[in-house]
Amino acid sequence: MFNVIKTKNKARRGELKTRKGLIQTPFFMPIATKGAVKTLSSRDIRDLDPEIILSNTYHLMLRPGEEELKGLGGLHKFMDWERPILTDSGGFQVFSLANIRKLSEDGVIFSSHIDGREYKMQPEDSIRIQGAIGSDIMMVLDECVELPADKKYLEQSIELTTRWADRCKKYFDKTFKKDKPLLFGIVQGGLDKELRLKSAKQLESVGFDGYAVGGLSVGESEQEMYDVLDYLPDSMPDDKPRYLMGVGYPHQMVEAVKSGIDMFDCVIPTREARHGRLYLWNKVFVESDRNILELEDNSKEFYRTINIRNESFKFDDKVINENSRFEELRTYTFAYLRHLFVTDEPLAQRLSTLNNLEFYLDLMRRVREDIK
Amino acid sequence: MFNVIKTKNKARRGELKTRKGLIQTPFFMPIATKGAVKTLSSRDIRDLDPEIILSNTYHLMLRPGEEELKGLGGLHKFMDWERPILTDSGGFQVFSLANIRKLSEDGVIFSSHIDGREYKMQPEDSIRIQGAIGSDIMMVLDECVELPADKKYLEQSIELTTRWADRCKKYFDKTFKKDKPLLFGIVQGGLDKELRLKSAKQLESVGFDGYAVGGLSVGESEQEMYDVLDYLPDSMPDDKPRYLMGVGYPHQMVEAVKSGIDMFDCVIPTREARHGRLYLWNKVFVESDRNILELEDNSKEFYRTINIRNESFKFDDKVINENSRFEELRTYTFAYLRHLFVTDEPLAQRLSTLNNLEFYLDLMRRVREDIK
Repeated sequence: MFNVIKTKNKARRGELKTRKGLIQTPFFMPIATKGAVKTLSSRDIRDLDPEIILSNTYHLMLRPGEEELKGLGGLHKFMDWERPILTDSGGFQVFSLANIRKLSEDGVIFSSHIDGREYKMQPEDSIRIQGAIGSDIMMVLDECVELPADKKYLEQSIELTTRWADRCKKYFDKTFKKDKPLLFGIVQGGLDKELRLKSAKQLESVGFDGYAVGGLSVGESEQEMYDVLDYLPDSMPDDKPRYLMGVGYPHQMVEAVKSGIDMFDCVIPTREARHGRLYLWNKVFVESDRNILELEDNSKEFYRTINIRNESFKFDDKVINENSRFEELRTYTFAYLRHLFVTDEPLAQRLSTLNNLEFYLDLMRRVREDIK
Repeated sequence: MFNVIKTKNKARRGELKTRKGLIQTPFFMPIATKGAVKTLSSRDIRDLDPEIILSNTYHLMLRPGEEELKGLGGLHKFMDWERPILTDSGGFQVFSLANIRKLSEDGVIFSSHIDGREYKMQPEDSIRIQGAIGSDIMMVLDECVELPADKKYLEQSIELTTRWADRCKKYFDKTFKKDKPLLFGIVQGGLDKELRLKSAKQLESVGFDGYAVGGLSVGESEQEMYDVLDYLPDSMPDDKPRYLMGVGYPHQMVEAVKSGIDMFDCVIPTREARHGRLYLWNKVFVESDRNILELEDNSKEFYRTINIRNESFKFDDKVINENSRFEELRTYTFAYLRHLFVTDEPLAQRLSTLNNLEFYLDLMRRVREDIK
């Protein structure tokens, strides 16, 4: 299922086998929240060439809806995308966007943030809905605890998350017999080492195709996150992919790869693009051809970010990225992109999204190269 | 400069020579209001393959500004577009968007709708700014009278418009010596035949490279517009292109071509696209291969419009346009496009814009074919 080809210290270069083909790790997943990466078509995504994309179960279960998606033949067909899709459980948005009506051993009852309609989400529901979506990598339902929380509560939450994970696994095994998707467990435990290790151990004994680190990048400091990454990946199974959910900035992903993480997703490149923040390679770094994993710890010297709305770009006639695979990014100037933002032209968001996702995906290609 | 190749009754198939090359008439111009066709890049526009695009002097003189555009090397370079650009005079938006501070024989003083900054627009200013933009077809500054207006006022307005046109022409002749753009006059006169004919005659005696019909599609009935088209193009010079400004729906453009009009621009295909209204060929018409100019007067049988947000498209798995040049329109279904609109995905507006502009441009290609 997962095969580590090469390592460099703790960093791993691997291949993950999915029912939609073999994909290369480490990788970053662009987020197609409601079945589209904001501003992009699936042809654009194909041009960007990611290994896999992520879509959100919570949003899709509300619209178009579980039954509707089944009727439409699943998300791959609906959005015209052939490569793998990973789906979250829906839990994260249930806990952050929806109104929780009841949280119990059984699961969650919540009402939609769109029209107030009530839904039930038990562990089995989440897997069933991910099945309707046609997910190739499914995530178990976990309780997403708001931090800070006291240790007692966190401990109970981990136990609940493990019981839910176990129910997901049982339902998954019963439901999918051949041409099976993969199912991942999610390690929780906040910033508490003892709880994190306990959660990892419990999930390992249930047994999953991969393991995720949840509950980071939710307000803790960068150093607190690095502290968890120092010990946690080491305590997760060697022969399974490790997924750091929702992280992060480019230098954080590099640090995480150096800690043994294989998979990433994050809204940063797309969300910040829509606000005019561009991620760009530092030319000096690119030209020196240095190994990105050999930079000093937490180094940001390989990239920079700019706010393209800044007055300083008004007459900047350099092209956005002369090495881009997109004609638009090779020919349009910073001055033009600034004009598009300042005048609220929708094209601005599309160009920035292409730029930032290309940067993130090129970064992961570079990281894969630099492990070899 | 302008060469009529073929006629079919009053309809004309021609070639217009611009400094950016020969373009085929009749044609439709997509509108790049502020230097971008909303949601599209110039690569997209090249894929759509229009003869020429239109951009708005008022918007560009506010942002990036006249001096800035000169510094940036003009609009062609700024937006990466090689083919001809037609610019309006700025007058229409000055009269509809800005706050007029003073209207006099000299010209207009107005304040920007964006930041209230005061600008002066005399006929010479308009031509000078269009020069800074790098326009290939320039329009004279005209007074845009709000209708209904009494005949006395309209008459004075026409006289003023002619004097302004004359000043534009003089400034133009003084300014552009070689590699010259074209300059068009604009016939005004509301719905009054006597005034329209008088305006046309006055402008002809000034002498322009082409003549536009202004002040239609501003609230009058369709029949009132057709009444003007019945006599007015006939009274405009035979050997110059005739441009019907701001019109219109597909069947109206067909009627206008049948009246001898050669050029069109309109916000309908792009604006309505952003609200989910799609223009589509009627398959029955396309398959019958009928001559579009031989349909019964004002026939709409060659096309239909749909509101893609409609519930009826929820499970419609037909592709948007199997004959489209855009992969996305050949592979995405109506159901998916509806989902994108319902969930406010920006991709929705882009796909609809591509669809509608492709329809409008294909219509003009078809019309050109059907004159031959």
